Amino acid sequence: MKATFPLTELPVIQAPMAGVQGSELTIAVCQAGGLGSLPCGMLSAAQISEALQTITAATAKPYNLNFFCHRMPAFDAQRQARWQGVLKGYFAQFGAEPDSSAGGASRLPFSHEIADVVEPFAPPVVSFHFGLPAPDLLQRVKGWGALVMSSATTVEEARWLEAKGADVLIAQGLEAGGHRGMFLSDDVTTQVGLAALLPQIVKAVSVPVVAAGGIADPLAVKAMRLCGASAVQVGTAYLLCPEATTSALHRRALSSERAEHTALTNVFSGRPARGIVNRVMRELHYLNPQVPDFPYASAEISRLRALAEQGGSDDFSPLWCGQNAHGCREAPAAQVTRWLAGV
Amino acid sequence: MKATFPLTELPVIQAPMAGVQGSELTIAVCQAGGLGSLPCGMLSAAQISEALQTITAATAKPYNLNFFCHRMPAFDAQRQARWQGVLKGYFAQFGAEPDSSAGGASRLPFSHEIADVVEPFAPPVVSFHFGLPAPDLLQRVKGWGALVMSSATTVEEARWLEAKGADVLIAQGLEAGGHRGMFLSDDVTTQVGLAALLPQIVKAVSVPVVAAGGIADPLAVKAMRLCGASAVQVGTAYLLCPEATTSALHRRALSSERAEHTALTNVFSGRPARGIVNRVMRELHYLNPQVPDFPYASAEISRLRALAEQGGSDDFSPLWCGQNAHGCREAPAAQVTRWLAGV
Repeated sequence: MKATFPLTELPVIQAPMAGVQGSELTIAVCQAGGLGSLPCGMLSAAQISEALQTITAATAKPYNLNFFCHRMPAFDAQRQARWQGVLKGYFAQFGAEPDSSAGGASRLPFSHEIADVVEPFAPPVVSFHFGLPAPDLLQRVKGWGALVMSSATTVEEARWLEAKGADVLIAQGLEAGGHRGMFLSDDVTTQVGLAALLPQIVKAVSVPVVAAGGIADPLAVKAMRLCGASAVQVGTAYLLCPEATTSALHRRALSSERAEHTALTNVFSGRPARGIVNRVMRELHYLNPQVPDFPYASAEISRLRALAEQGGSDDFSPLWCGQNAHGCREAPAAQVTRWLAGV
Repeated sequence: MKATFPLTELPVIQAPMAGVQGSELTIAVCQAGGLGSLPCGMLSAAQISEALQTITAATAKPYNLNFFCHRMPAFDAQRQARWQGVLKGYFAQFGAEPDSSAGGASRLPFSHEIADVVEPFAPPVVSFHFGLPAPDLLQRVKGWGALVMSSATTVEEARWLEAKGADVLIAQGLEAGGHRGMFLSDDVTTQVGLAALLPQIVKAVSVPVVAAGGIADPLAVKAMRLCGASAVQVGTAYLLCPEATTSALHRRALSSERAEHTALTNVFSGRPARGIVNRVMRELHYLNPQVPDFPYASAEISRLRALAEQGGSDDFSPLWCGQNAHGCREAPAAQVTRWLAGV
């Protein structure tokens, strides 16, 4: 029999945040009594294995591994070339050119090869973004005894995920930072604020529901639980913790008034994700129809980001952030976790 | 000395909804112990006077009068003609043509002429949408002893409204149906979900804050109050009440699965407003840059609406609705009010 969700002492899940954290944050949250998460979407199999060894050596508490489970589209050289054309002027400002040989994808979906590496660890919780993996792969994960979570951004997605076997749903309000988990539609007008989404998902499904998006203080945590959430998932509030690997530029933006204006953009990866508005988001109009499919869009912009960051500019950096940065605290993750939980 | 906000027995404000309600809904909510609102933005001075006589004859309880306070832009014949060009194909389907003499605006801002009519009634509460009226006009309203409310869609707008003299702020989450109250920016990416907006506004100002947007059940009301809201403002949940004048087509859409997908659109009025997605919203891409300035956009689309509705179609109807229609009940407004308040 499965233990009662959320398995942890405190009803707080630290949101997996690829690119701004490794196992150090995961461990700190787990040790504090929350559910720490490790984002695996941008890690190689070897890196995942290493992180798992680190986590399991450091804590005996439950933890969560997060994977993307998008279907990889075929690489479209023509589309990529057109996107390089869009970015050409930016490269020129750095005396550089788009790399026509680029196209390697830094984000790979969950696979049997990755499952081979994870299996010996039998992780207590596995969460997916962008739906669920293929049935055989999902069954393999459930066979380990892992609790499977996935994000629903609409009531329709919630019903779909429950029907396909998710054990726990994360109601991802559109306030949330980072990538939208949306997978049944690519129309961002379908995305719903948490205050409206949570009660509707709680009503529509019978599995436990986690509230995510813009939650940044203990009262909000309490309020979401009152509305039927079994736990909350919080990301942004952890971004200034010493255990996060958030860059200095990103930390500066989070601590400034700029964090009051975030927007959904697809220019960093090809899929809509929320970050603090910066130059490239504004100039490419946030949601640009010319962007290559996820995850191929990231190749060129990552080079521009590196070039700009060398000069101290975040013009091309993904400054992931939810719609409430007021919970960000320069404090150990354990402290943030217990503060959020009101203990 | 002013009475304690919200002046009423119950912390529930019925959102003013121009076009789908008159004084009957206002009165029913007031009598039930909530704060009933009368939307005056589409009424003539004579109609406002008549409604005020009806309300004050029916109830001695506090009520709220709501006005738009946009600045009227100059009528732009060229822009209007271009918009008529966009709509020409639709008119042709009804064997009709855009009316080149059209351009009358059905929504006029609050003015001294309207204040002359309102003054003798000394309304207990006056709320504004799109900011606040000019200082002399605002002072005149405050001189009656009226409590002045206005909607803030961002933290910046909240600070602005408090500084300019609003007594109460309505934190309008982007879940809300109908017109966005936004007035410091016309960039919809600035708009924030209620779960993120409310705590930030409560923290930023010292006046009472009302939570609005997607609130549709008693638990959500409780949750918002826990997060610091003095009261809630609810619109959508009243749309099926017998006291509302919601059309049969609109009621049907609200009761169907279609209500799960709403979007912000400017095609009905020139300003972003949330309604159930229908043909004209989809085909004109929700936020169309060619639309005439508010309120001039409504002239042509109102004619198309009338033509389509004659044939039982809501293809051109503004089906205003927030992101949670699950609270809609075919029940008297008094019952909805008390249910929301949890009494």
